[in-house]
Amino acid sequence: MKRSVAAIFALLIVLPAAAFAAGEDPSLPVLFYLVLILVSAKIVGHLAVLAGQPSVLGELLAGILLGNLHLLGVSGFTDIAANPGVDLLARIGVVVLLFQVGLESTLHEILRVGLTSLLVALLGVLAPFALGWLVGAWLLPDLSWYTHAFLGATLCATSVGITARVLQDLGESRSREARVILGAAVIDDVLGLIILASISGAILAAAEGAGATGIRPLAGIALKAGGFLVGSLLLGFLVTPRLFSTAARLKGAGVLIGVSLAFCFLLSYLAGVSGLAPIVGAFAAGLILEPVHFQKFGERNIHHLEEGLRPISEFLAPVFFVQMGTNVDLVAFASSGEAFWLALALTVAAIAGKQLCSLGVLEKGANRWAVGFGMIPRGEVGLIFASIGATLVLGGERIIDGVTYTAVVIMVIVTTLITPPLLKRSFQRQRAAERDNKL
Amino acid sequence: MKRSVAAIFALLIVLPAAAFAAGEDPSLPVLFYLVLILVSAKIVGHLAVLAGQPSVLGELLAGILLGNLHLLGVSGFTDIAANPGVDLLARIGVVVLLFQVGLESTLHEILRVGLTSLLVALLGVLAPFALGWLVGAWLLPDLSWYTHAFLGATLCATSVGITARVLQDLGESRSREARVILGAAVIDDVLGLIILASISGAILAAAEGAGATGIRPLAGIALKAGGFLVGSLLLGFLVTPRLFSTAARLKGAGVLIGVSLAFCFLLSYLAGVSGLAPIVGAFAAGLILEPVHFQKFGERNIHHLEEGLRPISEFLAPVFFVQMGTNVDLVAFASSGEAFWLALALTVAAIAGKQLCSLGVLEKGANRWAVGFGMIPRGEVGLIFASIGATLVLGGERIIDGVTYTAVVIMVIVTTLITPPLLKRSFQRQRAAERDNKL
Repeated sequence: MKRSVAAIFALLIVLPAAAFAAGEDPSLPVLFYLVLILVSAKIVGHLAVLAGQPSVLGELLAGILLGNLHLLGVSGFTDIAANPGVDLLARIGVVVLLFQVGLESTLHEILRVGLTSLLVALLGVLAPFALGWLVGAWLLPDLSWYTHAFLGATLCATSVGITARVLQDLGESRSREARVILGAAVIDDVLGLIILASISGAILAAAEGAGATGIRPLAGIALKAGGFLVGSLLLGFLVTPRLFSTAARLKGAGVLIGVSLAFCFLLSYLAGVSGLAPIVGAFAAGLILEPVHFQKFGERNIHHLEEGLRPISEFLAPVFFVQMGTNVDLVAFASSGEAFWLALALTVAAIAGKQLCSLGVLEKGANRWAVGFGMIPRGEVGLIFASIGATLVLGGERIIDGVTYTAVVIMVIVTTLITPPLLKRSFQRQRAAERDNKL
Repeated sequence: MKRSVAAIFALLIVLPAAAFAAGEDPSLPVLFYLVLILVSAKIVGHLAVLAGQPSVLGELLAGILLGNLHLLGVSGFTDIAANPGVDLLARIGVVVLLFQVGLESTLHEILRVGLTSLLVALLGVLAPFALGWLVGAWLLPDLSWYTHAFLGATLCATSVGITARVLQDLGESRSREARVILGAAVIDDVLGLIILASISGAILAAAEGAGATGIRPLAGIALKAGGFLVGSLLLGFLVTPRLFSTAARLKGAGVLIGVSLAFCFLLSYLAGVSGLAPIVGAFAAGLILEPVHFQKFGERNIHHLEEGLRPISEFLAPVFFVQMGTNVDLVAFASSGEAFWLALALTVAAIAGKQLCSLGVLEKGANRWAVGFGMIPRGEVGLIFASIGATLVLGGERIIDGVTYTAVVIMVIVTTLITPPLLKRSFQRQRAAERDNKL
């Protein structure tokens, strides 16, 4: 049975990449790369799930594999990450992904998480940000403070997907700890995006030589990013209900998906031209849309939107994660002691920073360790931040160079890998202790 | 309520296209164009549906509107069709669309349609092909026979979607006539794709100066196209069941969509490097996949695949149709008498050609007129053919130039517009006659 898969793979490798030159159609190389990306993402994703890990980790590993195949003497795939078509699909994929993440939470939820979640989120952003900055200043003293701050930013946002799945598996998804973690993770995302927007905005301003390169423009851009989020949320509350009750009256195929995607792309575009990352707009679009806006769509309500977005992101998000993986340079990592120590220090900072945040848990008897462990994984948001850093250039140097990027990816992989066992053991000990107390 | 829509539109027009230059992110102009495309497609699609027409017609009209906005003094949108990112998304959209069309029919159905459908399909391809060729030779005598043959090819394939909807509305979708039309339309698609592949292959060969530019290479490429379809169908029957029962065991998110799209893109790519249009491969991929391959996916069977593909094509297919519309040059059409007569003659050839095919209906008492009327609409497949012709160049001239392209689009619009009333009247007369006979 596995032979058919092997045959397909052999076919893919036999087909010479040189054949592209013959075709007139510019989509042919993209189609070829999409086959490679989707097949490898699903196969390595399967292996990751078998090993108890989320499939996104497998997609990332599939990308690392494809990007480093030249080490095994197989050439012709190094072009994947550089292909402008693949790059565009990856960018649209990550916009749709952040729209989905935004849809999963509503503004009401954010305003309602309570003091503990708020404290956990604030500590869980500030502590890793400071620790990441320190790691950068310590191990990369020759680079500018922008790089150090960017490293701090990649450590901010929690990727709560893996934690949510583990909590579900343990039957703890309605526990007090779960509520604290999930609430804090939402605020994390918002704060992380504001920090990302501020730093990248300051770098863009400095690159254009538009003014002072100090803390003041940074604060200005943080204000702008926060203002964009708050402004679009306010505008959303005023305009969106009317907009979507008008849209609900449109007849024809795919109105719900079409209008919602247009809304998401519009805010992404507006964020982009305001100097913020397009994902900030996509996330805001997701936050704004709430079930109530879809009442007029009758049967086809917001759950149908989430269902409709799923195939689109199942198609495009792996393109992003595989592309992220192909950018990892294993040779540079293996041959540079710096990269190893950077990855190690970043990982320690990532874990320690989120343990500090458990001090924000005010309730007595709550499992502080579990909250801290649940906040560890960085996942997609850290990767997205690193990939944005890799596109920013200041004084002819990339803010996040190849070695630093690879160290961030290693940090993301390790934090994702260690969360499930830590979380499981912590809950098992707690429940065992509770049983002992009752006896 | 309409004010919010107007506000969004005003916003889109106020936002200067020049702002793109400021952004570093190459996806920003694409995001902006996607907003324009999706919003205009859904609004004009809505108007089309209100007028009893399919929404694809509205999407086409939205494109014509966007592409000719400069006539109203609004500039900055002429770039849409030329943007390589929009072009890539349109190309992927049409590949996914043909994959869906292929999925809707199975090889069993094609082999089972019966003699009447086969005859209707053969006549319904040969008659419009010959008439279209004659129209080209008559009105465009200075152009090569490749252009004349290409015009014939754009008239071959029936776009049965609109007919199927009208039949459903009339409660006739299980009638004898409906079965003949739907069966013949499937064979139409196959024959049309073979003719398209043959002619475009011959043009590519002639453009490379690779040999004789006569009928012989044409026959060779027809053989190749037919061989590709038959070969991939045979290979599909041998490999696909194993491939998909292996894939069904993969764990992780989006395996069904990922593996199916990879299969579709692989065959599209193989068709492309064989010198055929990628859509030929996408259609073959759809034909090969049958419900039986998805049994192992358990609950998530082929209907889930069709449901999963719908949002993807609801997102990407409008990009294709709007892009097609933007290529229509209203000024060239209005200022050229040639274009008007060409559009008129093509439309007459398209209608007359499909009326001839009703001679293939062998059964007595069947409504021959209804079968002929049902085969009239050309829709997406004719447009796809014309767009492929517009990309082919021979001796420095495009095979389908701007004026000819516009004439084909007009033909598609008119054949789509006249089908519903003709079909309705024909069935109503027949049923009235049957009632009279019974009384």
